[in-house]
Amino acid sequence: MFSKATTGRMNYILLSGGSGKRLWPLSNDVRSKQFIKVFRDDAGNYLSMVQNIYKQINDIDTNAKITIATSETQVPMIYNQLGTEVSLCVEPCRRDTFPAIVLATAYLRDVLHVSEDETVVVCPVDPFVDLNYFAAMQQLDELTQNGVANLTLMGIEPTYPSEKYGYIMPKNKDIVSSVDSFKEKPDSKTAEKYIKDGALWNAGVFAYKLKYVLNKAEKLLNFVSFEDLLARYESLEKISFDYAVVENEQDIQVLRFNGEWKDLGTWNAFAEVVEESVIGKGILDSECNNTKIINELDIPILCMGLQDVIVAASDQGILVSDKASSDYIKPYVEKIDDTIMFAEKMWGTYRVISKSDNSLVAQLKIKKNGEISYHYHETRDEIWNVISGEGKVIINGKECIVEAGSCIRIPKKTKHSICANTEMEIIEVQISGTKGASDIIECCE
Amino acid sequence: MFSKATTGRMNYILLSGGSGKRLWPLSNDVRSKQFIKVFRDDAGNYLSMVQNIYKQINDIDTNAKITIATSETQVPMIYNQLGTEVSLCVEPCRRDTFPAIVLATAYLRDVLHVSEDETVVVCPVDPFVDLNYFAAMQQLDELTQNGVANLTLMGIEPTYPSEKYGYIMPKNKDIVSSVDSFKEKPDSKTAEKYIKDGALWNAGVFAYKLKYVLNKAEKLLNFVSFEDLLARYESLEKISFDYAVVENEQDIQVLRFNGEWKDLGTWNAFAEVVEESVIGKGILDSECNNTKIINELDIPILCMGLQDVIVAASDQGILVSDKASSDYIKPYVEKIDDTIMFAEKMWGTYRVISKSDNSLVAQLKIKKNGEISYHYHETRDEIWNVISGEGKVIINGKECIVEAGSCIRIPKKTKHSICANTEMEIIEVQISGTKGASDIIECCE
Repeated sequence: MFSKATTGRMNYILLSGGSGKRLWPLSNDVRSKQFIKVFRDDAGNYLSMVQNIYKQINDIDTNAKITIATSETQVPMIYNQLGTEVSLCVEPCRRDTFPAIVLATAYLRDVLHVSEDETVVVCPVDPFVDLNYFAAMQQLDELTQNGVANLTLMGIEPTYPSEKYGYIMPKNKDIVSSVDSFKEKPDSKTAEKYIKDGALWNAGVFAYKLKYVLNKAEKLLNFVSFEDLLARYESLEKISFDYAVVENEQDIQVLRFNGEWKDLGTWNAFAEVVEESVIGKGILDSECNNTKIINELDIPILCMGLQDVIVAASDQGILVSDKASSDYIKPYVEKIDDTIMFAEKMWGTYRVISKSDNSLVAQLKIKKNGEISYHYHETRDEIWNVISGEGKVIINGKECIVEAGSCIRIPKKTKHSICANTEMEIIEVQISGTKGASDIIECCE
Repeated sequence: MFSKATTGRMNYILLSGGSGKRLWPLSNDVRSKQFIKVFRDDAGNYLSMVQNIYKQINDIDTNAKITIATSETQVPMIYNQLGTEVSLCVEPCRRDTFPAIVLATAYLRDVLHVSEDETVVVCPVDPFVDLNYFAAMQQLDELTQNGVANLTLMGIEPTYPSEKYGYIMPKNKDIVSSVDSFKEKPDSKTAEKYIKDGALWNAGVFAYKLKYVLNKAEKLLNFVSFEDLLARYESLEKISFDYAVVENEQDIQVLRFNGEWKDLGTWNAFAEVVEESVIGKGILDSECNNTKIINELDIPILCMGLQDVIVAASDQGILVSDKASSDYIKPYVEKIDDTIMFAEKMWGTYRVISKSDNSLVAQLKIKKNGEISYHYHETRDEIWNVISGEGKVIINGKECIVEAGSCIRIPKKTKHSICANTEMEIIEVQISGTKGASDIIECCE
């Protein structure tokens, strides 16, 4: 049903955004849902959505040129999950999809030197799909190169009258059709009517020749280069690509896709595609039905006699939800303390294991050659307890080697850094800081 | 319905035993269910079962002389919850109820100098009852002093044909009756028949004159004093009081009790008497029914759309159970790692906040004047990070004062102790020990 691409012309922009409310507690403000590792690859390793989609594209298109458009906060996570060789276009701040796509397209031209006739496919990083989806992208490429339309969308054949998606109304029910109009998220009755008329879900996937978007954007945003746009990024208007471009384009077509496509935006949908019943430490008794445990904590979860329940636990908190109810999680999560308890950093991982009013204990796992840069804290003392590994610490300019059992006191205002010679684990104890994690002053000496 | 006692003759032996399986994860091998704090007193403070029963007895009988018969492991917990003034009879090892009751009775005579004609009432520490129960104990006292029988039991009027209890068959259905026979836990059909015949649940409550049990026991166990018995305790046969005494006694009567009495041996029963829906950090959405959260963790629990579910969380683990299913918890808990993650100590509390193969991080909260005695570890290094408070540390005989921000390295084989001048919090980091918590060698210099 799908074939490997050979043209070498295909450029993918994967949009990696999103906040962490709906898949709380596994997602948070620095770890969006696309970074949760719950999918098994053939070797049995857990992959995240972003790792999965990256692998899928490379599997079907060995010449694929993939760039991830993202924000600063996601960079460590992406490097950790995809490696530091991955091509990234980093927004200096959030400015909705039009500026983000233009920035990434300019990045392709000015940094990666993609020629202006090549195809660019933009797609979100977080649908759950099979390889047919990427085969359909090859068709988007062909349609784009044929030049029949300026913009070619992928439309998903609806499986039910969803209220969660915008709809594309094609002029006819052919595999490829001109677009008649776009519809906002309807109620389910209206959705039924749309579907009867041949409507498709708008999955936010579209293809164009590089020059198309840049020509449009240069007029609209009056910029000359990627560097120029980047410098002025903060001043740009927040506007969606749909609103700025798609809805104003007359010369637009849609490719009908009827393969597997799932939006994993809710726990209910997410749990459905997780194959295992228990990930992490957990036990389901024999009376549990259609119940899943995803446990990132170090303590076990025992479930007994539950039907259609999701139990998800991380350092952020614990969710126990009836599957259908989980769709309504957002307002509840908004009330919950969102101090980040776990984060991936360029140098490794950071996990809060205990906190009180005047102290915080964190576990730092530093990768081999990982470096925490030279900085100090205004109001808090720190103590580093080295649990394992070996590294070089600099304290107020003085260098020393530390190893398992070493203990380094870092009074406030003391400049410090560490570089791990081997993988290291450190227990960091923060005392009396009133500023928490934000009390970090970088030193550039 | 109840009246205050004035005789001053009443001696209570509260049996505090039990393991921690059925109310996992809130109970563990060092914290039995009677120490879980979930009952509110009038001032809004949380009380445990043992605190509750101790308070109830003192409320109804201001002259009550209460002794708690328990084991070494429960002593810190009892002192912390009831104060160090409480009268304790500590078994050197577990030897079932007959040796335990004899030891406690001998303790009353030889240590507390109770005269041999006074009444002793023995009752478990963990039923859930109201004050009428203790008023009934006053009646046990009167019946005992009247001298009609050697042993007077309290029998609970059954509310359903339970398979969980032994049954007492009285000779008639009067409030007080001679006992005809005892029945082992029956199936529910047999239980129904028993109940029709006027049977009562055996709640393990009985009264006798002090000399009665000691005379019996001196013959059976051939001992002369409390000290003598204590010294030989380990060599005693494991035998229950029912088997050794009750079932051989001809001159025995039972007092019928039809007030509130609940055995809180399962989560289902336990949750029923907890008034609040949420204890600790937790949220129930509006679709939750008959659902309870008891959360001792520092992270929040969000429950959505659950019916008849108990969620209980502690450092030991997380239970999510349908109420009826929770009765079958024991075999599942037996499979779970039972490393003690939280313990009350004479000096304060100990909580494991993180552990890995070669390290363990614990939070120590030491009470003012609390002392961790002089000891060392064979194979593990420790680091004490002082978070708050002030105290005196002795390291290999050298004394020093430590305070918030202090950091004390304690290499293996180094003798160390601490005495807290104020309340203290310490983060203890253990590294590379292969023996865990058992690697403690006390020093008696």
